[in-house]
Amino acid sequence: MVEDRKIRVPGFRASGIACGIKGGRRKDLALIVGDGVSYVAGVFTRNRVKAAPVLVTMERIRGGRARGVVVNSGNANACTGKQGLRDAQSMTGFVERGLGCRKGEILVCSTGVIGEPLPVGKIKGAVGRLVDGLSPSGWYDTARAIMTTDAFPKIDFRRETIGGKDITLLGIAKGAGMISPSMATMLAFFVTDACIKPRLLRKALRRAVDESFNRITVDGDTSTNDTVLIFSNSNGKEIKEGGPSFEHFCSLLKHSALRLARMIVEDGEGATRFVEVRIEGASSRADAEGMARGIANSVLVKTALFGGDPNWGRIMAVIGRSAEGIDPSRVDIYFDNVQVVKGGCGAGNERKAERVMKKRDITITVDCNMGRYSFFLWTTDLGYEYVRINSEYRT
Amino acid sequence: MVEDRKIRVPGFRASGIACGIKGGRRKDLALIVGDGVSYVAGVFTRNRVKAAPVLVTMERIRGGRARGVVVNSGNANACTGKQGLRDAQSMTGFVERGLGCRKGEILVCSTGVIGEPLPVGKIKGAVGRLVDGLSPSGWYDTARAIMTTDAFPKIDFRRETIGGKDITLLGIAKGAGMISPSMATMLAFFVTDACIKPRLLRKALRRAVDESFNRITVDGDTSTNDTVLIFSNSNGKEIKEGGPSFEHFCSLLKHSALRLARMIVEDGEGATRFVEVRIEGASSRADAEGMARGIANSVLVKTALFGGDPNWGRIMAVIGRSAEGIDPSRVDIYFDNVQVVKGGCGAGNERKAERVMKKRDITITVDCNMGRYSFFLWTTDLGYEYVRINSEYRT
Repeated sequence: MVEDRKIRVPGFRASGIACGIKGGRRKDLALIVGDGVSYVAGVFTRNRVKAAPVLVTMERIRGGRARGVVVNSGNANACTGKQGLRDAQSMTGFVERGLGCRKGEILVCSTGVIGEPLPVGKIKGAVGRLVDGLSPSGWYDTARAIMTTDAFPKIDFRRETIGGKDITLLGIAKGAGMISPSMATMLAFFVTDACIKPRLLRKALRRAVDESFNRITVDGDTSTNDTVLIFSNSNGKEIKEGGPSFEHFCSLLKHSALRLARMIVEDGEGATRFVEVRIEGASSRADAEGMARGIANSVLVKTALFGGDPNWGRIMAVIGRSAEGIDPSRVDIYFDNVQVVKGGCGAGNERKAERVMKKRDITITVDCNMGRYSFFLWTTDLGYEYVRINSEYRT
Repeated sequence: MVEDRKIRVPGFRASGIACGIKGGRRKDLALIVGDGVSYVAGVFTRNRVKAAPVLVTMERIRGGRARGVVVNSGNANACTGKQGLRDAQSMTGFVERGLGCRKGEILVCSTGVIGEPLPVGKIKGAVGRLVDGLSPSGWYDTARAIMTTDAFPKIDFRRETIGGKDITLLGIAKGAGMISPSMATMLAFFVTDACIKPRLLRKALRRAVDESFNRITVDGDTSTNDTVLIFSNSNGKEIKEGGPSFEHFCSLLKHSALRLARMIVEDGEGATRFVEVRIEGASSRADAEGMARGIANSVLVKTALFGGDPNWGRIMAVIGRSAEGIDPSRVDIYFDNVQVVKGGCGAGNERKAERVMKKRDITITVDCNMGRYSFFLWTTDLGYEYVRINSEYRT
């Protein structure tokens, strides 16, 4: 882990403060800006109910250029109608005036409770402090200010030489509950001093998200606010398509996104285990993904994982309802390297499997012995703490 | 409720005893037989992983005739390979010899833990007692003997005059957890002294199941053992297609199945609430069903229901990911008759909604204001008790 003060990305500054949305001294307002206008790309929730800030940002990002993004936690500004759209625009307006930049150059994200009016007054009153607080080393404050039920801030920082140039990539993310197939209730922001034009930046981001944030699921629900943004320096030596530099950058971005995705799962609400579900030898990609998502989202499998019960029968039942082209009599299942199912029947390693189930990190591998398709997902168990967090009034 | 001793269906007897699969004196072996060969129809799990007794019964039911069904609880005889098939066949063989009927005339069901060998010896040793115990009033014992995590036996008994003849219909069911879109881990058996030939009996059963057992979901998982069977008297005045008698019988069967389905949900593992999810005005049947299933299976919605939190934001989020043709700005949501969402935004009846959420029976109505399609489902909340039941070792 790189030390706090050393986390800097040339050309970018960040800030995170408390403005009173969450109450008390809990940070809930963040700002990330480039020294000039940056290239930008984004990936957004596929939920048809999109929060106001998502709609505003999707519109503004079209040109592929922006100055930065303002983010609040504690209120999602979702299901808030036309007033919500006006509020999201006001929120960017305060920052644009504070920074002295042009209208429409600031993007916006919100995360928190759905359906309550955004407390615009609190944000307006705090923007001065927010802008004054901008610092090249403000990333931890920012990471804290975007948290909701997260237990810890999530930051990933990397340096690498790409095409002879030293590149810095910084990612921050939030997310703990409502995490799902389509990267639900999560926000992630990347900034890099590499120079990549918008179209290519979008391509790199899509690839990275598909192999990282779209591979995690805590409870199978999809949020109204998911947003992943990447800002890239618009000056310097450009990374172009087709060359090794672009592939190198994609790999760097993917590894950073995977690291952040893993942190989100490790911070899963009430989670006591980190579970990798691996499907091998499926007869189609759809089957492989269907089984992985079926297992990872099955409440029965998740509660068995919580109880440390190597209950492979529940996994077999999920496989049978999730895959079109499955022959149950060919299925092998492993908990880590302990085989519990051989040819669709119990393999008789119950004792050894019980020992695996006591671990915090578990890999469940299903080998269908049918074809060449595979898929993986990361998930958690589901226990009392998940119920407590999600049943308490309006968490 | 009809008194226990009055529950009789002319031509049918039943028995339920303890044979030691569950341990102690808990009943775990049941038998239902007709005095002669009956007409029979069945509906089975759509899970591709089918338990051995399901495969045996599906094969035997083809001719539309059977003498009866033997059922054990405590062991699902699922994922048990070829030995499982031999065990299911042995189980019916014991009963066939005990009754002196022909090979293949007895059907078989099992419910319980997946993946453990069926303790055939225990069943063999108890079949004498099982057959001796057959009685025209043995239905409560039978209903108890098929229970697993059920808190109470589930029986529905009806008498009606159809086509000038007095008809008796009796249904028993089991199921509490692992209840899902495709009527998971549930068994139900109907016997009637009405005379309906197999093809028509199948039609009536499919209709009834589709409007009852396929409308309940406790945790979204589908079992390997689901079976619904109906036995009909093969003598007497036949109920034929096309006439009012058949429609009358279908309605009787549907109401009985609905009553049993409701009992299963009311007995949902750890459930503290009975929730009806109603979708109105959807633009397609697929959207209506998708939204209903999405809401009923969302862990976030279910934990909010457990906590008594009128958190309609979670419902809006589910709607957005479950329906293709939805316009969020037209959506209205009601908890009972209290409107909480109007045109996609909060309707501001928080206090009243909180009072509704304290009730045991709640109806959530989503009006899409788009088209003419509707759908309903019954479900439960999800709380600590569900986690306890399903995380304890091999329940």
